[in-house]
Amino acid sequence: MIEVGNDVQFIKEGDLCSVPFNIACGRCRACKERMTGICLNVNPERPGSAYGYVDMGGWPGGQADYVMVPFADFNLLPFPDKDQAMEKILDLTMLSDIFPTGYHGAIKAGCTTGSTVYVAGAGPVGLAAAHAAQLLGAAVVIVGDAVEARLNQARSFGCETIDITQDTSIEDQITEIMGEPIIDCTVDAVGFEARGHGSGEGEAPATVLNQAMSITRAGGSIGIPGLYVTEDPGAADEDAKHGALKMDFGLGWAKSHAFYTGQCPVMQYNRELMMSILNDKAQIAKAVNATVIPLDDAPQGYQEFDSGVAQKFVLDPHGDLQGASRA
Amino acid sequence: MIEVGNDVQFIKEGDLCSVPFNIACGRCRACKERMTGICLNVNPERPGSAYGYVDMGGWPGGQADYVMVPFADFNLLPFPDKDQAMEKILDLTMLSDIFPTGYHGAIKAGCTTGSTVYVAGAGPVGLAAAHAAQLLGAAVVIVGDAVEARLNQARSFGCETIDITQDTSIEDQITEIMGEPIIDCTVDAVGFEARGHGSGEGEAPATVLNQAMSITRAGGSIGIPGLYVTEDPGAADEDAKHGALKMDFGLGWAKSHAFYTGQCPVMQYNRELMMSILNDKAQIAKAVNATVIPLDDAPQGYQEFDSGVAQKFVLDPHGDLQGASRA
Amino acid sequence: MIEVGNDVQFIKEGDLCSVPFNIACGRCRACKERMTGICLNVNPERPGSAYGYVDMGGWPGGQADYVMVPFADFNLLPFPDKDQAMEKILDLTMLSDIFPTGYHGAIKAGCTTGSTVYVAGAGPVGLAAAHAAQLLGAAVVIVGDAVEARLNQARSFGCETIDITQDTSIEDQITEIMGEPIIDCTVDAVGFEARGHGSGEGEAPATVLNQAMSITRAGGSIGIPGLYVTEDPGAADEDAKHGALKMDFGLGWAKSHAFYTGQCPVMQYNRELMMSILNDKAQIAKAVNATVIPLDDAPQGYQEFDSGVAQKFVLDPHGDLQGASRA
Amino acid sequence: MIEVGNDVQFIKEGDLCSVPFNIACGRCRACKERMTGICLNVNPERPGSAYGYVDMGGWPGGQADYVMVPFADFNLLPFPDKDQAMEKILDLTMLSDIFPTGYHGAIKAGCTTGSTVYVAGAGPVGLAAAHAAQLLGAAVVIVGDAVEARLNQARSFGCETIDITQDTSIEDQITEIMGEPIIDCTVDAVGFEARGHGSGEGEAPATVLNQAMSITRAGGSIGIPGLYVTEDPGAADEDAKHGALKMDFGLGWAKSHAFYTGQCPVMQYNRELMMSILNDKAQIAKAVNATVIPLDDAPQGYQEFDSGVAQKFVLDPHGDLQGASRA
Repeated sequence: MIEVGNDVQFIKEGDLCSVPFNIACGRCRACKERMTGICLNVNPERPGSAYGYVDMGGWPGGQADYVMVPFADFNLLPFPDKDQAMEKILDLTMLSDIFPTGYHGAIKAGCTTGSTVYVAGAGPVGLAAAHAAQLLGAAVVIVGDAVEARLNQARSFGCETIDITQDTSIEDQITEIMGEPIIDCTVDAVGFEARGHGSGEGEAPATVLNQAMSITRAGGSIGIPGLYVTEDPGAADEDAKHGALKMDFGLGWAKSHAFYTGQCPVMQYNRELMMSILNDKAQIAKAVNATVIPLDDAPQGYQEFDSGVAQKFVLDPHGDLQGASRA
Repeated sequence: MIEVGNDVQFIKEGDLCSVPFNIACGRCRACKERMTGICLNVNPERPGSAYGYVDMGGWPGGQADYVMVPFADFNLLPFPDKDQAMEKILDLTMLSDIFPTGYHGAIKAGCTTGSTVYVAGAGPVGLAAAHAAQLLGAAVVIVGDAVEARLNQARSFGCETIDITQDTSIEDQITEIMGEPIIDCTVDAVGFEARGHGSGEGEAPATVLNQAMSITRAGGSIGIPGLYVTEDPGAADEDAKHGALKMDFGLGWAKSHAFYTGQCPVMQYNRELMMSILNDKAQIAKAVNATVIPLDDAPQGYQEFDSGVAQKFVLDPHGDLQGASRA
Repeated sequence: MIEVGNDVQFIKEGDLCSVPFNIACGRCRACKERMTGICLNVNPERPGSAYGYVDMGGWPGGQADYVMVPFADFNLLPFPDKDQAMEKILDLTMLSDIFPTGYHGAIKAGCTTGSTVYVAGAGPVGLAAAHAAQLLGAAVVIVGDAVEARLNQARSFGCETIDITQDTSIEDQITEIMGEPIIDCTVDAVGFEARGHGSGEGEAPATVLNQAMSITRAGGSIGIPGLYVTEDPGAADEDAKHGALKMDFGLGWAKSHAFYTGQCPVMQYNRELMMSILNDKAQIAKAVNATVIPLDDAPQGYQEFDSGVAQKFVLDPHGDLQGASRA
Repeated sequence: MIEVGNDVQFIKEGDLCSVPFNIACGRCRACKERMTGICLNVNPERPGSAYGYVDMGGWPGGQADYVMVPFADFNLLPFPDKDQAMEKILDLTMLSDIFPTGYHGAIKAGCTTGSTVYVAGAGPVGLAAAHAAQLLGAAVVIVGDAVEARLNQARSFGCETIDITQDTSIEDQITEIMGEPIIDCTVDAVGFEARGHGSGEGEAPATVLNQAMSITRAGGSIGIPGLYVTEDPGAADEDAKHGALKMDFGLGWAKSHAFYTGQCPVMQYNRELMMSILNDKAQIAKAVNATVIPLDDAPQGYQEFDSGVAQKFVLDPHGDLQGASRA
């Protein structure tokens, strides 16, 4: 007999589990190739699905007392020990989306031991990407944003920061930190809602991508977990309304850049990140400033989030997380 | 709406499908990492399972009129068009085991465009590995065996051959072909039943592995689809009885070799190989000399196979393959 | 003593060699990471260098009687046997640029056994990419172009073709071939000089990239050996003049596409492709319709090439290739 | 103009540099494929070379006042800033061998975020591998050795430890820590001088490899930086004298293990590890307990090292490291 260990994962009633935000069938070509973010079977409109999003298959959202998880035996990640899990529950909550999404961005940007990294955006995805870059061994992590409170949050766990509202260009601010206007890896954690550099400018959806091509070293990669959409009715110009971005693609081409887009396939990463949390290697709740609120306060939480606070709100329908503190 | 194509693979009643020889649950850590050859859930004795083998989970074998396929919605590969599939049915039959297994060996040995490759063994796995190496773009494929009929079969589709019963060493025979006793990639398609070089020698289970280390270039890889066992009661010496092989590991170490072992995870390869067959790029039935026989003739087929004929017998319980010819 | 083989490659006087179009120092970070297309040391203006191009370091061109090869001990690929090489000299000539460049595009697009591939453009790079896709085991290769002679050339070695001047959309033409408007891998062998679909339209530099996002399967990759520039003074609109492309990036993002850009690092591929040629596995001269002309006829060759003939002209300053025929 | 940054690495007189222990030509096939540990050009006896070793090319050793570095423009890694480098000089010294070698073992064993890792051997390579596993994000690192002082050193930077002289088996000791006798990744930092488990047993060169197969999860990898030799005249039995190891290869095969052997190709890792040191992410000198001694004390240092002290001695011929302290 050959020992296979405890990692036998049929879900049992009573298991405490993490639910990935992607809904995936586990049987189609994409799922078999580990690309659960673009499952072909769960959404008649397009590849990939998620709970409670427009265009994402019509599955009711997870911000509720209870949620139905399709293909649950495939999608759920059970925690090995319930009591141990409850001690880290706030961190473990981040496994559904924000932690793997940030990690995906960092991985695709090529972050590894000794990398210098720029993360555009200090919202929860950006902060998660910054922390993920640290876990991956980055030598320097620089985070850029327009909101001082978010930059402050990034500094709280050891990141350098860039205030994009300043008159000094991104390139010059990076030179101040690195001695040259070049980093190894860039993560775009902003997406199509990017704004132009400097104060007073409006939306300029290709800004972050173009900056990424400017500062990423030749041969480097750009990880793009930030959302880009096919239609943006509220965009400033006609091109952007139809999802067309004015990209300095010639610059990226001259530097042999690689670009990685799309929803994070959570299942590629959540088990490993769970192990990091359970063994005190990752402090993701602290990095994104996770804050528990009751389900009834959700509308106010969304309002505050939209105003740019440096907080990731965690809804707690049943009061289970009352005592949950950050690692 | 974004088109996802026809590759939506829920199995329906009436589908014509390929059944991988591995039984896999599709839900455990190994399956989620695409290692369906070592599924943790389908065999209480060890990782991995298969139909009708000792130690492999107790699932009744596939050499029968009908077979129960556990987790069929995960394991089965449906053919896109039944009529088209029936035209290539003999080739498609090879997708259950022999074609992916040979391909796995070639992939793990590092075969790619321009590679020079040695395949030890010209049984069905070795012939499939040789054909796979060709599909992967190998510049030269050399096959070694002790049975002339099998070497002849290898030559029939463009391989060079080495007769291991000759007095000339493997190294010298390779030099005759290549101008040096070195190739890029080696596939061990023999396993523990290896015999010593030259005529008259008995079983010497580490022979093929040691030859592989001798001839594979520094930095090269050795793909080992050939079976090695944990117990071999009929072995010639005490060490071999308990599965201990006398390996020249220091030689491999000096050459920075990498060694890849284990059952083929069929599902990593079968869809791609199916596409090759359906589009006339692979002629696997011809390469392994597939021969259709009725189920009742199975005992005789086994007997002939053991005697070393260069044939891969395909059992046809219902007479469906009567007219099946090789591509 | 452990045999290292004949693959010891100090260049000696009298060696017959292939000269990669990239000039690379072999000592900088990029070169050490095998990215010789963006060597940091040979061009004060930007990463990467080449013979006889604007902006590429000021090294005199290779279309001359003699050429100086900087860092020749690193850059040159010697052929193992001069006489053998002269028999395949027309094919081997393609190792300097067009064959590795097409192969790079196919590799980056993810072409492998059983892939379905679309190559945009049937100029020499596109034809080389199509042949490379075949070598990599593609199940179906479709080539699109506006010039019938080039499409005819693509068909001559087994490709399917799409005439982009027809009123039928690319998607519909692919559906006619594949049964769905989706392929696995796309190679953009056109670049910024792309034109809109259908007759009569002018330059539309993002056309090919946008079509690639439309037809490439979710999770697929787009290899982009076609040149995109940072400045295009002759472009039709202001954005394009400054290298800004109107890309449907939201569509690519929705499908989790990866985009790979840049000059081919020839040295990553030329040895393997040389082995393919020397062992009769690749017929690249035939695929691109290589045609030998004397150096003095170069101006006329360029003129004909610009007019869209399906020929790759090879300049022969010393008459060495007089008798060279295609494999 | 496109900025290429400061990473332009022609060596200049006066540069402070790290010298990799491998000697590599930078021009052969192996070097071009980044396998500088098996350069084909610098050693007539076998692939690969090093300073001052038997069989390694006859290059005088680096434990001297001065050393000649062949192909220095390729081999040397210059530090970006001399003053900054002198502040971390003890850590940076480890870049020549021990840090990349340990890191190579951890990488090849598949260590990444959340991995559980066993390192066999707590000599300098083992301790470096353990620290490297931490940098790579390991959730748990367990180190096994027979010398209490070395285990104590491993515990000093957060590793779990196993005393292999105890009567409890390795498997049971791992179960005590992990709850199961299984880890994800194993690094063999011992090599052929392994001894049997428990007190009183003599040399048993396959012990560590066999334990690795027992405890590594199915589908896991075994990184083997520990040296295995082709001849061992002082070995206990005839097989071992000729480098033949009695390996439980059938067990590894049943678990689909991959085995990675050979000298570390330092140049694949030293730049990244330098960045880690310079930015205070790695404390390698502390992990291996680096101790500076004058060149004249080298014989005594060797003697102490052979006796099993938990120290890595650094020879300081010119007294430059007098004040060097560990990070």
